[in-house]
Amino acid sequence: MIRAGIIGSTGYAGAELARLLYQHPETEVVWCGSRSYAGERYSSVYQNMYQMVDADCRDDDLEKLSEEADVIFTATPQGYCASVINEGILSRAKIIDLSADFRLKDVAVYEKWYKLEHKAPEYLPEAVYGLCELHREEIRGTRLLANPGCYTTCSILTLYPLVKEGLVDPDTLIIDAKSGTSGAGRGAKVANLFCEINESMKAYSVATHRHTPEIEEQLSLACGHPVVLNFTPHLVPMQRGILVTAYGSLTGDYSWEDVRQVYEKYYGGEFFVRLLKEGVCAETRWVEGSNFADIGWKIDPRTKRIIAMGTIDNLIKGAAGQAVQNMNLMFGLPENLGLTQVPMFP
Amino acid sequence: MIRAGIIGSTGYAGAELARLLYQHPETEVVWCGSRSYAGERYSSVYQNMYQMVDADCRDDDLEKLSEEADVIFTATPQGYCASVINEGILSRAKIIDLSADFRLKDVAVYEKWYKLEHKAPEYLPEAVYGLCELHREEIRGTRLLANPGCYTTCSILTLYPLVKEGLVDPDTLIIDAKSGTSGAGRGAKVANLFCEINESMKAYSVATHRHTPEIEEQLSLACGHPVVLNFTPHLVPMQRGILVTAYGSLTGDYSWEDVRQVYEKYYGGEFFVRLLKEGVCAETRWVEGSNFADIGWKIDPRTKRIIAMGTIDNLIKGAAGQAVQNMNLMFGLPENLGLTQVPMFP
Amino acid sequence: MIRAGIIGSTGYAGAELARLLYQHPETEVVWCGSRSYAGERYSSVYQNMYQMVDADCRDDDLEKLSEEADVIFTATPQGYCASVINEGILSRAKIIDLSADFRLKDVAVYEKWYKLEHKAPEYLPEAVYGLCELHREEIRGTRLLANPGCYTTCSILTLYPLVKEGLVDPDTLIIDAKSGTSGAGRGAKVANLFCEINESMKAYSVATHRHTPEIEEQLSLACGHPVVLNFTPHLVPMQRGILVTAYGSLTGDYSWEDVRQVYEKYYGGEFFVRLLKEGVCAETRWVEGSNFADIGWKIDPRTKRIIAMGTIDNLIKGAAGQAVQNMNLMFGLPENLGLTQVPMFP
Amino acid sequence: MIRAGIIGSTGYAGAELARLLYQHPETEVVWCGSRSYAGERYSSVYQNMYQMVDADCRDDDLEKLSEEADVIFTATPQGYCASVINEGILSRAKIIDLSADFRLKDVAVYEKWYKLEHKAPEYLPEAVYGLCELHREEIRGTRLLANPGCYTTCSILTLYPLVKEGLVDPDTLIIDAKSGTSGAGRGAKVANLFCEINESMKAYSVATHRHTPEIEEQLSLACGHPVVLNFTPHLVPMQRGILVTAYGSLTGDYSWEDVRQVYEKYYGGEFFVRLLKEGVCAETRWVEGSNFADIGWKIDPRTKRIIAMGTIDNLIKGAAGQAVQNMNLMFGLPENLGLTQVPMFP
Repeated sequence: MIRAGIIGSTGYAGAELARLLYQHPETEVVWCGSRSYAGERYSSVYQNMYQMVDADCRDDDLEKLSEEADVIFTATPQGYCASVINEGILSRAKIIDLSADFRLKDVAVYEKWYKLEHKAPEYLPEAVYGLCELHREEIRGTRLLANPGCYTTCSILTLYPLVKEGLVDPDTLIIDAKSGTSGAGRGAKVANLFCEINESMKAYSVATHRHTPEIEEQLSLACGHPVVLNFTPHLVPMQRGILVTAYGSLTGDYSWEDVRQVYEKYYGGEFFVRLLKEGVCAETRWVEGSNFADIGWKIDPRTKRIIAMGTIDNLIKGAAGQAVQNMNLMFGLPENLGLTQVPMFP
Repeated sequence: MIRAGIIGSTGYAGAELARLLYQHPETEVVWCGSRSYAGERYSSVYQNMYQMVDADCRDDDLEKLSEEADVIFTATPQGYCASVINEGILSRAKIIDLSADFRLKDVAVYEKWYKLEHKAPEYLPEAVYGLCELHREEIRGTRLLANPGCYTTCSILTLYPLVKEGLVDPDTLIIDAKSGTSGAGRGAKVANLFCEINESMKAYSVATHRHTPEIEEQLSLACGHPVVLNFTPHLVPMQRGILVTAYGSLTGDYSWEDVRQVYEKYYGGEFFVRLLKEGVCAETRWVEGSNFADIGWKIDPRTKRIIAMGTIDNLIKGAAGQAVQNMNLMFGLPENLGLTQVPMFP
Repeated sequence: MIRAGIIGSTGYAGAELARLLYQHPETEVVWCGSRSYAGERYSSVYQNMYQMVDADCRDDDLEKLSEEADVIFTATPQGYCASVINEGILSRAKIIDLSADFRLKDVAVYEKWYKLEHKAPEYLPEAVYGLCELHREEIRGTRLLANPGCYTTCSILTLYPLVKEGLVDPDTLIIDAKSGTSGAGRGAKVANLFCEINESMKAYSVATHRHTPEIEEQLSLACGHPVVLNFTPHLVPMQRGILVTAYGSLTGDYSWEDVRQVYEKYYGGEFFVRLLKEGVCAETRWVEGSNFADIGWKIDPRTKRIIAMGTIDNLIKGAAGQAVQNMNLMFGLPENLGLTQVPMFP
Repeated sequence: MIRAGIIGSTGYAGAELARLLYQHPETEVVWCGSRSYAGERYSSVYQNMYQMVDADCRDDDLEKLSEEADVIFTATPQGYCASVINEGILSRAKIIDLSADFRLKDVAVYEKWYKLEHKAPEYLPEAVYGLCELHREEIRGTRLLANPGCYTTCSILTLYPLVKEGLVDPDTLIIDAKSGTSGAGRGAKVANLFCEINESMKAYSVATHRHTPEIEEQLSLACGHPVVLNFTPHLVPMQRGILVTAYGSLTGDYSWEDVRQVYEKYYGGEFFVRLLKEGVCAETRWVEGSNFADIGWKIDPRTKRIIAMGTIDNLIKGAAGQAVQNMNLMFGLPENLGLTQVPMFP
């Protein structure tokens, strides 16, 4: 059994991790960390786990935790993981960081977009970007895993093959993304009250959202030169689910089937990526509660653009599920172990 | 492996059955019946199962199905199962009927509330009412199982110990129940359109809902004389979840702890019933996606009434999950096999 | 033009008051008070009023406000109004208090349920309980108006004629009430976040909700002796709307039509009370955005109980709309002036 | 008083028209037409109007209606209005058609996108496209008004000044639009059931939505040459509201303020268009229940694109409200008469 600890286990992503790990056949959760609820019963904070999880919330002492765990998940605000990580911890436990601290290779880009000083740039070279479908081999060998953001996972999975194979002009990329509200976290803010979110939608962080450089970095790697694109997130009145609608100008006269073959080349063997049939648009409800990413696309002959649509459950493939997928890889387990749930509908 | 067939697999309860059975380690689904979608790809009707379920919808030939399956689930409208069942079918396969056809022992009561002639009253004596926590032993031995209704499961579980032990006066029982909209089914009706249901709530079938006699029959069995009560269902804008708020006059000066001991007596060893701590009210979100029933209660010293609150996921403990729990019992499997999902939140 | 001031204008009830008063043909809003947002643009807090309301939020100086206004609405927490009111203020402006400070005639009851010392009991005798349909004449003459609570308005309107005319046994009354989430206010609390409320429902404050004594006081006045009843509020994932399902044992063999005549006697001439036809249940959607109260009922011959169902928009008839209705009465205007909006659907 | 008739009064747009016209000070509704509900009480179909509207649904005899009404609103499926209109009708009553029959000047474009033969092309030249802010003068004089589509109203209002003044390159326009579900109509379809729409979102009619040529035609008029663009609608789980996020490459180095001046030039005097302050994104909740269009924008210096965001209530400014605004213009009334409702929140 892998002994797992979670720092930040009472946020939505942390709680989803707890839920998945408690159901994982090869994992034992040894530490539910929570600064806000330390000392309280975990199942009194997340009553869904009543009589299933028998633990109190603990503090966030990463040093001590690294002595008790084989793997540590940090589902914490930006800056935390970089500020506490050190060689001793990494020598004792593998780290899967769900924050952005080790996602971007360029410190300057991190500091510009996050407006934070990076406290551990020396670990950036060895950190591996944990989008499993793209970096599987590096993931297997790492001890420091940067788990991708929710929007970025969905955006990159949707666009990577098109950019990598040169089907779209990267200079024309526009990503219009929509998310359920669990992505906004469990902080007590007026803006996230039920009556403020329900029956409304809006764009936010337009042209400034922090997931932008992460998407750009990965797509730049794909095409070999710097990609600059528009990414616009929107908030929608539902719990879970991200839908990405991505637009790009085609570089040639490609058919739907041509595009399918390119997607197939990259995702044909992937358990968690489902390529939709022609005419089917991605819908968030069909992936809710699962680690799947569904991808569909449409070619518009009038404008010679492709409209590619991807969807994930932001808390699973966009956070906790992908973290478990990464853990499976890092510990030599079957990649989909504990992650084969059928999406729940309705 | 148990070979399972589903008649009515494209309604919400049927699809939930399919979802649970496909994830069940000892079951193989051999027949997804659907009169409406016969011949269509099952996963094109329920796209959540895309690339997981590789089958076409078949018709509803119960005779033929009984030759291919060990157990048949009928998630069909009232009257169907009674009209087709016969000795040959029952000799080849066990039947778990999710409709009301075999729930009520008294044909006259059935025909009065359902306004249907009962086509197979000869099977009523052997049919077992499948509320596992109350009738476990009979369930193990039956070949014809009447799976309880959603409201009834929640209502009976909440009230049974109180009535059985005489803590409440049965003549004073009032059950005010609220349900998410998946209970209304997948039929194309204006009344169930998103814009009609969303942002509204209402009572319906007041004093005439068909689950009333089912609740009354079981509670009458509990106390040994006929119970007549008020049951009022309400429709609420959410997917899943039933909440029952039940009122009854206490027959004595009982404390919260007295009541807890009575509940404990009946449910202390039950995996799927969670008795909440003092001061905690049942909330549907904490059972969503699971087979749990959560029960809490409050004593009002001013009125000398108890307010007992129970909640279930109507599609799981209220339908498909309980059907699988019954199947497990009928086939000698661990009762919670394939049903240990942690409730999903948010 | 009546000069109106609002203390607490940035809560949901206060903002609804602002919205109604700005559209009222005989009112001018001269003061939008808000302790939290003092100095900020009102329309930056409530962007719906952008370019319609040209004012900054002001503090809550009731003395000064009473020199500028003819009527003052206090949409403030319990205890505020009682702590600042005085003869000077009342001599200059009429007060419509949306809090509970002057609703209960018995100080001891107030202090017990609200756990607050009442700071101005000397004004209780002259305060008038502003349920317009029951106390119209006293309202016209008062300078201190206690605006009823949302649950209480709906509960009392639904039950008053039945209790007053002795059709139901008051000792058997059970009120099961459900509310949209705007009733929970605009405070930043985890419990009211979108993801916590959405897709769930629960009872709360069971047997202890503060609206209970208010309902009991008015119904006791109706029948002439003390009424003690059960009142259970529930929270439902929607914006606006209260639905009350009330149960009581009939004192005789009354028909639906008998009951209609009793309701008709009290509400036949009321603009804001709509008695529904036989077989029609109250639904919150049909009153949303209006000052209407819709009332329907069903008689259950099996249990000899009546199930009476009432619904209102909690922010309008349950708060701001009723406050305006009271203002109209207090200033000799047509009672429905500025309140004739057709409910908005969908 | 203007005598108004509505054909198709029991769809969502028709019912919103009824609601607005019954509250309009200069209008009398003389005919609520409904093929589906002919003979039924209008207020039994739309119970919100109970005791406010005293009429039965009538059939859709446009000839007869034209003898009783001064203005006729056709809120009917595509093809209906064109198939029944004639000189006699137009000589007796003004027609405001909420369908697409007279929106596109080019019959071939209509027939291609709508896959319908146009039955009255002879009236296309005189029909006026009723986007009031752009075609006010022609509207005043017409007897045949083509009321714009919901998506188109929001899209065109958002983009028109930018295209007209050459700030964006029309060849780069991408419109990503999101709508609440009332836009999908009141037909009984499985796809629009509560449980299918709730907790999900999707794109639909990608690259083929019929509002595309309407947007293109108006923007082509603006810039003087043919515009071809991408328009992608999405369905979101809420009642009302359209949000348009539009992307275009800037033709020069324009600042936020430069853009503001251009918007101001076109909308500075418009009652129903609200230009948002810098940094404020359009949110549907702030226009719900009103005839307002809110517009904001952001310039992305990294990609040299503008992201312009507009929002309307799809049933009001996107349908019924704009139709009333057009009626006001056509009958010489103040343009905002009966349309000054403050948006309702929450």
